[in-house]
Amino acid sequence: MVSYDDYTTDGFEISEIHFDATNLGKWESILCQGNGYMGVRAAHEERYPGERRNLFVAGTYNRFDEHEQTELPNGADLIGLDLGLNGEPFNLIAGTIHDYRRTLNLNNGELGRWITWSTEATGRMHLEFMRFVSLRDLHLFCRRVVVTPLERDVEVVLTTGIDGRMTNSGVSHFSYRSMRAPDEGTLQLMQTTTQSRVAFAFALCDRLQRGREDATVRGHAEGGRRLIRRVYRLRLAKGESLELEQAATVHTDRDRDVDLSTGESLAAVNLAYLRDRADRTYEEHLSASTEAWNAHVWSGAPVHIESERAVDLRALRFARYHLTAITPAHDRRMNIGAKGLSGEGYKGHVFWDTEIFMLPYFTLTTPEVARSLLEYRGHCLPTARRKANENGYRGAMFPWESAWIDDGETTPEYGDVDVHTGEQIRIWCGAIEHHITADVALGVWHYFMASDDQEFMDAVGYEIIFEAAAFWASRLEWDEAQGVYGITDVIGPDEYKEHVDNNAYTNYGAWWCLANALNCAESLRAKRRTLYDRFDRELGLAHAVDVWRDRVSTVYLPKPNGEGIVPQDDTYLSLDQIDLSPYRSAQSPGAIFKELTLAQVGKLQVSKQADVVLLMVIFDELFDARVRKVCLDYYESRTLHDSSLSLSVHSLLAADLGETERAYEFFRRACMIDMGPNMKSSDAGIHAASLGGIWQCVVFGFGGFRPRIDGVLRIRPRLPKAWSELSYSVRWKRRRLDVCVDHRRVHIRVDGDEPAHLDVAGASYTVHRELDLAYEPAAVV
Amino acid sequence: MVSYDDYTTDGFEISEIHFDATNLGKWESILCQGNGYMGVRAAHEERYPGERRNLFVAGTYNRFDEHEQTELPNGADLIGLDLGLNGEPFNLIAGTIHDYRRTLNLNNGELGRWITWSTEATGRMHLEFMRFVSLRDLHLFCRRVVVTPLERDVEVVLTTGIDGRMTNSGVSHFSYRSMRAPDEGTLQLMQTTTQSRVAFAFALCDRLQRGREDATVRGHAEGGRRLIRRVYRLRLAKGESLELEQAATVHTDRDRDVDLSTGESLAAVNLAYLRDRADRTYEEHLSASTEAWNAHVWSGAPVHIESERAVDLRALRFARYHLTAITPAHDRRMNIGAKGLSGEGYKGHVFWDTEIFMLPYFTLTTPEVARSLLEYRGHCLPTARRKANENGYRGAMFPWESAWIDDGETTPEYGDVDVHTGEQIRIWCGAIEHHITADVALGVWHYFMASDDQEFMDAVGYEIIFEAAAFWASRLEWDEAQGVYGITDVIGPDEYKEHVDNNAYTNYGAWWCLANALNCAESLRAKRRTLYDRFDRELGLAHAVDVWRDRVSTVYLPKPNGEGIVPQDDTYLSLDQIDLSPYRSAQSPGAIFKELTLAQVGKLQVSKQADVVLLMVIFDELFDARVRKVCLDYYESRTLHDSSLSLSVHSLLAADLGETERAYEFFRRACMIDMGPNMKSSDAGIHAASLGGIWQCVVFGFGGFRPRIDGVLRIRPRLPKAWSELSYSVRWKRRRLDVCVDHRRVHIRVDGDEPAHLDVAGASYTVHRELDLAYEPAAVV
Repeated sequence: MVSYDDYTTDGFEISEIHFDATNLGKWESILCQGNGYMGVRAAHEERYPGERRNLFVAGTYNRFDEHEQTELPNGADLIGLDLGLNGEPFNLIAGTIHDYRRTLNLNNGELGRWITWSTEATGRMHLEFMRFVSLRDLHLFCRRVVVTPLERDVEVVLTTGIDGRMTNSGVSHFSYRSMRAPDEGTLQLMQTTTQSRVAFAFALCDRLQRGREDATVRGHAEGGRRLIRRVYRLRLAKGESLELEQAATVHTDRDRDVDLSTGESLAAVNLAYLRDRADRTYEEHLSASTEAWNAHVWSGAPVHIESERAVDLRALRFARYHLTAITPAHDRRMNIGAKGLSGEGYKGHVFWDTEIFMLPYFTLTTPEVARSLLEYRGHCLPTARRKANENGYRGAMFPWESAWIDDGETTPEYGDVDVHTGEQIRIWCGAIEHHITADVALGVWHYFMASDDQEFMDAVGYEIIFEAAAFWASRLEWDEAQGVYGITDVIGPDEYKEHVDNNAYTNYGAWWCLANALNCAESLRAKRRTLYDRFDRELGLAHAVDVWRDRVSTVYLPKPNGEGIVPQDDTYLSLDQIDLSPYRSAQSPGAIFKELTLAQVGKLQVSKQADVVLLMVIFDELFDARVRKVCLDYYESRTLHDSSLSLSVHSLLAADLGETERAYEFFRRACMIDMGPNMKSSDAGIHAASLGGIWQCVVFGFGGFRPRIDGVLRIRPRLPKAWSELSYSVRWKRRRLDVCVDHRRVHIRVDGDEPAHLDVAGASYTVHRELDLAYEPAAVV
Repeated sequence: MVSYDDYTTDGFEISEIHFDATNLGKWESILCQGNGYMGVRAAHEERYPGERRNLFVAGTYNRFDEHEQTELPNGADLIGLDLGLNGEPFNLIAGTIHDYRRTLNLNNGELGRWITWSTEATGRMHLEFMRFVSLRDLHLFCRRVVVTPLERDVEVVLTTGIDGRMTNSGVSHFSYRSMRAPDEGTLQLMQTTTQSRVAFAFALCDRLQRGREDATVRGHAEGGRRLIRRVYRLRLAKGESLELEQAATVHTDRDRDVDLSTGESLAAVNLAYLRDRADRTYEEHLSASTEAWNAHVWSGAPVHIESERAVDLRALRFARYHLTAITPAHDRRMNIGAKGLSGEGYKGHVFWDTEIFMLPYFTLTTPEVARSLLEYRGHCLPTARRKANENGYRGAMFPWESAWIDDGETTPEYGDVDVHTGEQIRIWCGAIEHHITADVALGVWHYFMASDDQEFMDAVGYEIIFEAAAFWASRLEWDEAQGVYGITDVIGPDEYKEHVDNNAYTNYGAWWCLANALNCAESLRAKRRTLYDRFDRELGLAHAVDVWRDRVSTVYLPKPNGEGIVPQDDTYLSLDQIDLSPYRSAQSPGAIFKELTLAQVGKLQVSKQADVVLLMVIFDELFDARVRKVCLDYYESRTLHDSSLSLSVHSLLAADLGETERAYEFFRRACMIDMGPNMKSSDAGIHAASLGGIWQCVVFGFGGFRPRIDGVLRIRPRLPKAWSELSYSVRWKRRRLDVCVDHRRVHIRVDGDEPAHLDVAGASYTVHRELDLAYEPAAVV
C-alpha cells in the first residue's frame, strides 16, 4: 500500500515494498516502462488473476469491427515467464514471502524486483528480476533474471517466450502470421493488425547460464497457438544461480526507421536489429539507455526542489519519467494518449489533455518534441475539416478523441451501464464537446510564443489557427434577443454538465481563436504578403477575416455577476445545490454515481473538474484577482475533482492568487492521483494530463514562470513554506533560462548574447545573462 | 492426481480430491458439462493462472480472419465469480485447504465442489459450489453457491456476471452488441460472431439470500468492456450462510427453436426463457434435468458390468456421459467435434472420428441421433462435391475437417513449430488424408443395416454412398506396370506416414465403397426403378455404375505377404526399424518428436495409431484369424498409440482374436486416455473418439456384439477374467435386444413379435423373444 508519506527521502525511486495481489493494476501502471515508441506495463513475470499484460507500440491503432472505435492494440507479451521449482509454479500467492521489493528507478526506467520466498517444496529461494525498455535503442527491451535456491537443490523448469494471445479486454487486434525459432536461442513471432494492417515483428533472444558452472544451458522451442516459447530444464544446486539474460526487439512496418523498400522483410529487419545487439550484456544495454535518459531528459531541463518533503521532487521526477515513457517523440504522426502507453484506458486516444496539460512541459523543455506533437494536429487537419463539414460547419473541428492521423473522430458512443437505469450511458463528448478546437490553437500559439519557430508556423501553425477560427466563426449562433453570438448545446471541461449553452470556457476560447487568427492574418497581410496570399487562395482568408472581425466583437463572453462569479454556463448558477461532502471525501472518483444518475447530477451545482477555474488560469489577464478568487472559492467547493485534469489547475490558480499553501495542498493531492494511495484509479493506466499538471504546478505555479497568451514572459515565484529553494531550467525563445528562487530572492541566468525581456516579480527587466533580485512574495499577485 | 486405481468403487462419480493448480486443464476437460447444445468447461469460480474458461454453443463456427480456419467460438463466461472475504480474494493457492472435493455426478451431470479453507483474515470458511447444464431445457445453466464462515464474522464482496471478454487462445470471435441490467436481479449481454454473424444472447438471474435472515440481498450492476457484473456486499456472521442461486440462459439466432420471424428480438426470447424459469429453484431444475438424463440416456440402453474393478463400469458411464454432453442431437446441421464441446482443441471440427468411433454407439442406442449425425454429412454434400471438383475428382470428397455445413474443408495448413527445424510443421491431412470419404459411407451403411431406415437412405444415404463411390472411381490411378488401380500420395489412419502409396486401409475402403455402391445401385435398379432413375438423372448413375464395375475388380488390395503381414502401404515394410521402447513407455504422446522430426519418423517403421489393425476390425471377414493375429502383433509393436483412436481399436481386434486379457489391457489403457493419470493430454478437451471406443470395447469387443458390414449380426461374447457378467441393450432393426453374458452362458431377449436372425457364438439362430445358451469362450474366434 502506497501512501503519500510512505516514500523514503533518498533516491528517485518508486517502490512496492509488499506484494499485493489485489492491487496489481496500480503497480502495473505506475511502474510502467516505455520510451515513447513502446510501453510495457509492469505485469509480473508469473501470472495472477486480474493482471493486465500490455505492450503497446505508439500509433499502431486498429479497429476491431464497425461497432468499436479504433484503439492501440495490445501486442505480444514478452514478460510472462513460467518458473517451475521442484514441480510447483513460482507464484507469490502461494508459499511464504520473506522479503519483497519492487523498485522503478525513475532516472533510467529500470524496474527491479528482489524476492526471498519459500515453499515446502523449494525451501528458501532468492529471485531477482530486472528489466528496462531502452531509450537508446527504441526497439529494444532487455531483461535479466537470477534464481538462486538457498536451502536445497531445486529442479527448475523455466519457460519464456513470445505470447501473441494478448487482447484488449477480450478484443484481439491481430492476425497471426508466423512464428519460428531461427536459431538455438532465438524466437520470433509475426502478426498484423486486422484492419489497419500494421505488421508487427517480435524477436526474443535468451542467454541462460548457470552461475557456478558458467556454462550455457540449452532449451527447446515449443509452438502453440499464437505462442512460441523456449523451455529450459535444469537442476540448481543449493546456492547456485541461474542467470537468464534476454534481449527482445519489436518492430512494425509503420516505423519510420524501418525501410522495406529494398525488399527486405520486416522479420529480417527485426532479427538483424536483435542480432546486432545480442552480444552486448544487459548491463551494457542499460548503461547506454541510462546515458540517453540523462542526455534527452534530465540534463536539458533540470529542476530541483529543496523541500521538507522529498516526495515533491520525486513526484516531479515521476511525472517527467512517465511523460518521456509515453510520448512518441520519434514520430510526428503520433501523439500522447490520455493513458500514455501504460494501459487500455481511453484506447490510447489523444484528447485536449495534450495541449492544455502535457504540451507546456515539452514546449518549455524540449520544443522539438512539442513541435512534433503539434504537427500531429496538422496531419489531422483533413479529418478535422471533414468533421466540421459533416456537422455543417467550416474550417477544422478537431475530434474530441483522435487516434491515427486519418481516423477522425474516435470517441465511443456508449460507456458504462448506468446502475440506476440498467442501460449503457450515451457519451456525448464526440458530438458536442467542442472546446478542443480552441485548445489546439492555444497550444500552437503558446509553442510559437515560446519557441519563435516561424518555420513551424508557416508550415502548420497558421493553418491550424486559421482553420480553428473558421470553425468557430461558423459554430457561433446569433442570439437575436441578446444581440450576441452564443454557443449552445455543448459540453465544457466540466463533463457533468451536458447540453449546456454558453459554457464560459468554450465561449472565451472561441473568442480568443477569432481574435488571435485576426491578429495573425493582419500581421501576415502587412508583413508577409506571399504567405498571406497562399492562405487566401487555399482557405479564403480575406473573406474569412471579414467574418471574424464581425464576430469577434459580438461573441458572448460571460461576465462576473454581482458577487464576482463568472457563470460556468447559462444555467449553472440557478441549479440546485446539495451537500457534496460525502462525495468530496470519497476514496474513489465517481462516488456520486452510486446514488445519482448523470442526468440528475446534470441538474445540480456539481462539477467534475476545473472549468471556470481553468478559464482563469489560461486567460488570467482578463479577470481581476478578486473575481478569480471568488470563482476559485465558489467553484472549487462545488467540484468533485473526479477528473485528473482538475487538481493541478486549481493549484495553478491558487498560486496565481498568492494562496501558496492552498496551492501546495492541491499540488500534493495532484501528485497523489497516480502515486497516491488510491489503489484502483490507475488500473486503466497512468494519468498523462496529471503528469503534465505536476510539472506546471512546480514551474508555472510555484516557480511562477508563466508565458502569457500575449507573449509576455512573467516570472512571479511564490514558494510554499515546505520548500526552501526551487531551481528550474526552461527553453524560451531559443535560449535557455535557468531560474533559481527561494523565499526572498530570484536568480535568473540567460544563455547567449541576446537579452531577454522578462516581467519578474511585478516589474519589467531586460536581462543580459543574469538577473538577481530580492522580491516580496506577498506582493507578487 | 488421478490414477487408474484411485477411483473408489461406489457410485458413478469422478472426483478430484486434492486441489491441483498445476493441472487445471485436465479437470476442466474431464469434468466438463454439456447437453449437446452447449458445453461448459469446468473452470473454477475463482481465477487461476493457466485456466481455460470455455462456453461453446454447438455449430456456431466463426472464422476470425482469412489466415485462420473457422472454429467454435468461446462464448461469454458465466462461471467466473469473485469472492472477497475480509478484503482478500478467495483463492485456493493462498491460505490453507482443510478439505476439498470436486465431484462430477455422471448420472445427471451435476458438478459439486465442497471446500473448507482458511486464511488469517477469514478463519475457517466452508464453501459449496454446485452447477449443471440442463438436459431438459437446453438453453439453461444453473448454479448454487453457499458460503459459510465457521470461525468469525466475514465481510463478503461477491461479484458475478457475464464476461464477454473470452477468446479462443487470444482470438476473439465476437462483436460486442449490448449489455443491460433489465431488472434488480438480471443481467444480459448480446454479442455476434464477427464473420458468420451468429447472434448470441446471455442472460443471468441471481437470487442471493442470507441463510439466517432468509432475506434477499440486493447488489448493484456494473458495466465494463464486454462485461456486466453485479456486486453484492454483505457481512456474514459466524455460522451464517450466504446462498446464491443463479439461472442463466444462452440463445443464438442459429438455434432451430428460436423463431424471430414474428419480429421478436433474440434478446427478448433469451430473457423470456429465463423469466419463465426464474421462479423455480436450483433443485427443481436439477430434478427435471436428472429425469431427462434417465429418459434420454440411461434407461434406453442400459449397460452393466460386474467387474472386480468398478472403474470399468465408471469408464463406460464416463464415456456415455460425455458423448451425451458433446453431441448436438438437437440439430442435424451439426456434428460432434473431436474434442466435443469441452475445449478449444481441433477448433470444434468434425473428423472421421464420428463415423468410425462415436457413430456406432448412437446407431445402436439412439438411432435418431445417429441419423441426425449422418444427415449432417448429407448437408455437407455440396461442399464435398466442391472439394472433389477443386481437386480434379468427381463425386463427393468429404473434408478431412469440417465445421459448419457449408464451410467445406477446414483443416489448418500449419501446426506446431518443429523443435528441430524451428519452422512450423505443414499439416497435409486436409489435402491428402482421403479415407474419410470411405469412412462416411461406412457409417451410412452400418446405420442402415442396424436401423432399416429406408427413408433416410432414400433421402440422404444412397446419395452419400453413390457420391463417395464416384469420388473413389475418379481418385483411382491406373498402374500400368501392375495392371491395377492404385491410390498414391495419401495419408492413411497412421498420420506418421505422409505421402504414401496404396495405404491398405484407404484402398480397401475405396474398394468397398465401389462394391457397396454397385450393389445398392443394382438393387435399386431392380426393385425401385423410380428412385434409381432419379439418381441416374441427378448423378449419372447408369454411367457411373459401368465405371464402378470396371474399377471394383481391379482396385489394388494389398494382400498378406509370406509371413502373413498385410503391408500398411507400399514402403512401410521396407523402412528402417528402431527401438521404440522409450517412446512407448513415455508418459505423454508425441515423445518421439523431442528427438526426431516428422520427416525422420516417416522413414521408420513407426506408427502413430491403428491402421492395418483398424482395417482388420472393420473388414474382419476379409482376413483370416492367422493374418489378423500376425498383423496385430507386428503393427502393435511398432505403434506408439500417440492418437486416442488407437487403443480401443487394438482392444477390438484382440477381442476378435480371442485374446481377451490382451484386449482388456488395451481397454484399460483406452479408459485412461481421459480418466487416467496423464495430467496434460486432456488440456485441449476430452477425446471424443476414445469415448466411442470405450463403448465399442465393451459392447463390440467383450460383449461380442458385432454388426458386420454385410448386415449379419454376430454375437460372440468373450469376457475378461475380471468380469463375471456383462449385460447390454441395443437397438437393432427397430427392435431392442437385451444381451446378458457371463463366462459360460449368453442370454438374449428380443422385444416385439418379429424374430431376429443372429449369429451367436458361432452358430445361426432365429430368435423369437428369447435365446439362452451355453457357449465355450475358447471356441469363439
